[in-house]
Amino acid sequence: MWIYEKKLEYPVKIKNPNSKLAQVIISQLGGPDGELAASMRYLHQRYSSPYGEITGILTDVGTEELAHLEIVAAIIYQLTRNLKEDDVKDTPFATYFVDHTTGVYPLAASGVPFDMKYVGIKGDLLTDLNEDLAAEQKARTTYDNILRLTDDPDVRDPIKFLRQRELVHYQRFGEAIRIAQDKLDCKNFYAYNPSFDKPKK
Amino acid sequence: MWIYEKKLEYPVKIKNPNSKLAQVIISQLGGPDGELAASMRYLHQRYSSPYGEITGILTDVGTEELAHLEIVAAIIYQLTRNLKEDDVKDTPFATYFVDHTTGVYPLAASGVPFDMKYVGIKGDLLTDLNEDLAAEQKARTTYDNILRLTDDPDVRDPIKFLRQRELVHYQRFGEAIRIAQDKLDCKNFYAYNPSFDKPKK
Amino acid sequence: MWIYEKKLEYPVKIKNPNSKLAQVIISQLGGPDGELAASMRYLHQRYSSPYGEITGILTDVGTEELAHLEIVAAIIYQLTRNLKEDDVKDTPFATYFVDHTTGVYPLAASGVPFDMKYVGIKGDLLTDLNEDLAAEQKARTTYDNILRLTDDPDVRDPIKFLRQRELVHYQRFGEAIRIAQDKLDCKNFYAYNPSFDKPKK
Amino acid sequence: MWIYEKKLEYPVKIKNPNSKLAQVIISQLGGPDGELAASMRYLHQRYSSPYGEITGILTDVGTEELAHLEIVAAIIYQLTRNLKEDDVKDTPFATYFVDHTTGVYPLAASGVPFDMKYVGIKGDLLTDLNEDLAAEQKARTTYDNILRLTDDPDVRDPIKFLRQRELVHYQRFGEAIRIAQDKLDCKNFYAYNPSFDKPKK
Amino acid sequence: MWIYEKKLEYPVKIKNPNSKLAQVIISQLGGPDGELAASMRYLHQRYSSPYGEITGILTDVGTEELAHLEIVAAIIYQLTRNLKEDDVKDTPFATYFVDHTTGVYPLAASGVPFDMKYVGIKGDLLTDLNEDLAAEQKARTTYDNILRLTDDPDVRDPIKFLRQRELVHYQRFGEAIRIAQDKLDCKNFYAYNPSFDKPKK
Amino acid sequence: MWIYEKKLEYPVKIKNPNSKLAQVIISQLGGPDGELAASMRYLHQRYSSPYGEITGILTDVGTEELAHLEIVAAIIYQLTRNLKEDDVKDTPFATYFVDHTTGVYPLAASGVPFDMKYVGIKGDLLTDLNEDLAAEQKARTTYDNILRLTDDPDVRDPIKFLRQRELVHYQRFGEAIRIAQDKLDCKNFYAYNPSFDKPKK
Repeated sequence: MWIYEKKLEYPVKIKNPNSKLAQVIISQLGGPDGELAASMRYLHQRYSSPYGEITGILTDVGTEELAHLEIVAAIIYQLTRNLKEDDVKDTPFATYFVDHTTGVYPLAASGVPFDMKYVGIKGDLLTDLNEDLAAEQKARTTYDNILRLTDDPDVRDPIKFLRQRELVHYQRFGEAIRIAQDKLDCKNFYAYNPSFDKPKK
Repeated sequence: MWIYEKKLEYPVKIKNPNSKLAQVIISQLGGPDGELAASMRYLHQRYSSPYGEITGILTDVGTEELAHLEIVAAIIYQLTRNLKEDDVKDTPFATYFVDHTTGVYPLAASGVPFDMKYVGIKGDLLTDLNEDLAAEQKARTTYDNILRLTDDPDVRDPIKFLRQRELVHYQRFGEAIRIAQDKLDCKNFYAYNPSFDKPKK
Repeated sequence: MWIYEKKLEYPVKIKNPNSKLAQVIISQLGGPDGELAASMRYLHQRYSSPYGEITGILTDVGTEELAHLEIVAAIIYQLTRNLKEDDVKDTPFATYFVDHTTGVYPLAASGVPFDMKYVGIKGDLLTDLNEDLAAEQKARTTYDNILRLTDDPDVRDPIKFLRQRELVHYQRFGEAIRIAQDKLDCKNFYAYNPSFDKPKK
Repeated sequence: MWIYEKKLEYPVKIKNPNSKLAQVIISQLGGPDGELAASMRYLHQRYSSPYGEITGILTDVGTEELAHLEIVAAIIYQLTRNLKEDDVKDTPFATYFVDHTTGVYPLAASGVPFDMKYVGIKGDLLTDLNEDLAAEQKARTTYDNILRLTDDPDVRDPIKFLRQRELVHYQRFGEAIRIAQDKLDCKNFYAYNPSFDKPKK
Repeated sequence: MWIYEKKLEYPVKIKNPNSKLAQVIISQLGGPDGELAASMRYLHQRYSSPYGEITGILTDVGTEELAHLEIVAAIIYQLTRNLKEDDVKDTPFATYFVDHTTGVYPLAASGVPFDMKYVGIKGDLLTDLNEDLAAEQKARTTYDNILRLTDDPDVRDPIKFLRQRELVHYQRFGEAIRIAQDKLDCKNFYAYNPSFDKPKK
Repeated sequence: MWIYEKKLEYPVKIKNPNSKLAQVIISQLGGPDGELAASMRYLHQRYSSPYGEITGILTDVGTEELAHLEIVAAIIYQLTRNLKEDDVKDTPFATYFVDHTTGVYPLAASGVPFDMKYVGIKGDLLTDLNEDLAAEQKARTTYDNILRLTDDPDVRDPIKFLRQRELVHYQRFGEAIRIAQDKLDCKNFYAYNPSFDKPKK
């Protein structure tokens, strides 16, 4: 279970509303490689990890992704509060506003609501960890893209923090793969378990 | 942010694997009225609450729903561990197993992956609280249905706990509506805000 | 069965095309809280109502929502007829136009086609009626938002009619809940049926 | 607008509950080629018909498909009422029951909720009518398949009625295409409008 | 199996980047009536064709649609390469860019990822061929619409080629229907197979 | 463009129909980690590869995945031909049969139609290659699971071939990452491009 602590893992203090930017960044809330996908991926994958050490990494990172989800939500919230009528009416934000006002709803920048189809949970430790390495790279790329799209230092600052954390997570999952390979007594980099090719009795 | 505490809010100790039952209960993980929907609904709705008291309720309940998500995941995990070949092969569980082995993946009993479309976040306090009352009733009904479908006391016990909590949440959201109506100085039960019908300048 | 009467429940006479506005209002056609969702919710929920009086309310309101679906479709149609090339080319409407020309297709303002996932039908009378109260509030909020986004009186007039009807429906579902609670001989506001917590034989 | 008349277009009187069969037939409620898809296809396509005669056909057939939707819903309802515990518990119907009890929810036999993606509305009269011919054939095939899957005369009888109506609709859309081609002064069977290939000024 | 030949079926040489136009044309990549839908429709329908001649048509056309998929992908690629910062930042393309940079991802102009729900495969030859006629008309309409939305001759030229091929495919499927009807010894234009209405033993 | 060669990359000769097994294996047709996802992933990712060598690998592997798609389709076809009435009626296959007869439709074992949401295309070479490594592992796991679910040597044989090819692809993508890292003059295993963290001018 989780205990809520009333603070953000990294502070968000945005002075200037910007609904257009909010519509882009929201992909890290509910988009294909966003923080909701990340937290649910790791927190559920941990059940099929046979090694406590790796279960622990998945729990830790999954819990931190919940904190990141909250950071991204705070960014969206602060970018869309204090909007003036002209920031909504006759703007692309109107298509979001009509259904959610300025509420924070987890969807992709494309407007597509979050879907668990983005997440792979295969119940095979090495496969799941490969999924996690890819997931971290995809999230990193999204943050790179966000950084290309805004000059606002109030926004860039937490986004750079989040981006940096994805790199750390990537490293942790790289370590987890090495632990898993050692434990599986299988040095094969390609995670090939030859037992399945044996003829079945 | 959240701190993980390594214990379940309510203990789950299931002795007998039952993949068929797991496929039904999994709806409370990733189904239309499951715990993932619930936690994401409340944790994101709280940004548009103008009153700290109600924000607090949404944060509390949303955080508890994360704990419930973990309880349901533990139930699924325990119902599908130690399966014998006959519990999978030529059974309906094979259609889950082929894509997730015995990993825990948030989908509905129907096999449809979790989708945020199940969740309403309208950015209007009274509307969101009405959504929450309905959500709790829908979750309650699902737990009722699960109780009709199993005699295993190891499963019924945590399900009854979860069901009971939905009733408590329903009451808390009922109180939140009363708080909101008082604060909005609007006793109108039907949440009608007549200002929008005035001609626009 | 239904008999078609060739008139709108409320007249729609829009003089000025406005593709941008059409893309927003279309959410009440095929969006999460639109009229298609509403009509299908009530017309299907009625099968699990044990009381003819409530079945009748669900049939009446569901049938009226079909009429509202037609009103919203007429609004979309009239806002997108007689468009000039400049109203389409290099505008956000082009992403709709490419796939539907100026046909009327039920999707959300986000561009996501209508999905029944928005609709809850639980087969439990009190739960379904709670869903309906929430649904009416969500539709009401969407109409409020539309009213914030347009000054065109030709559009505002039928939208205000539709919004007003949602309030009436909200009241009717409120009455239906009271009828149901009386009939269930269960004054418990929270719809708690304790029989399910009894140990199963 | 529509007036509800409290009778089915064709009577449904099913004596024997059969949840397994209900799970198959439900595809004609909310499946890819079901009656909900059909009614929404025609009732929305009619806005882009330039000829009142064809608009009338689309309105008539769309309205009749609503009546068929009601017939299929009645079949599902009657097949799932009076179920005994053994008709649900440990059966494939349990995955439906857990989320909808015995309520009637528009989804496909596969368990996937109705999605408007099944429906094409292109805003081009000849294209839309081609879509309609295909739609009627697809619905006809589904009814053929249902007839292969049940011997119950109480079920076969209304299914045969529905299947027969699809053939009639197919003919009406065939006539509509001929009317459209005549009016477009374009005998080309393949609906080729050469004006678009001219160089644009 | 397929052998890749390193050339496009029709050349694409676009000089001027245009991200806005790319976002419209991409519907023919991953939209409801795009080339991915087309190729997968025909290449999978062919398994239920009982006649080698028609299987051959489906294989041929399906394979050509793969080539068209590649042409559309090349158009998207060329329209989005060499973009300057101003072609992305604060433009509608930003919502695509954030998740895919300038990668080519099969989705609809609306932003919705490709979904097989757009495709009908009924396992009934005449029905599938009706689906194919409709599909070709829908693709043709989409190309018509694209031609209305751009003056760039570099883009119009391959689009006109693609549009022309849809007409040819429409004719081929028309011929396939005639072949099928002859072989089925069934002149009935409406594909009615009366055997299914006979009482079942 | 592609040239079709009328032979399978690996022969499929299945003697015994088995609709239940077909419903499991179909996930490698249209499921989250199936061959359709694979081919579309690689064939579209190649547009954002800046190095011809890697573009070539993506084209080769993507083209081979099309061949695998055809192998899986052939397996499904052969497992569902010559079914007797008892293989369909009152079996879980009936829910597939009702909508597709014995046609071959790309969906997951769960019954969910193929969705491009399963596929990541980020327009960043290292990220896309990480996605590909994960994709191959996920497909490998699915084939492992299929091998656990059937003893039929006619089925196991082509499945083992397909599984083996995923391992080869995994190795090829591993090599592609090394090529990319060399060319990017960036030995950092974690694909960290520090340029994005510099303050923007």
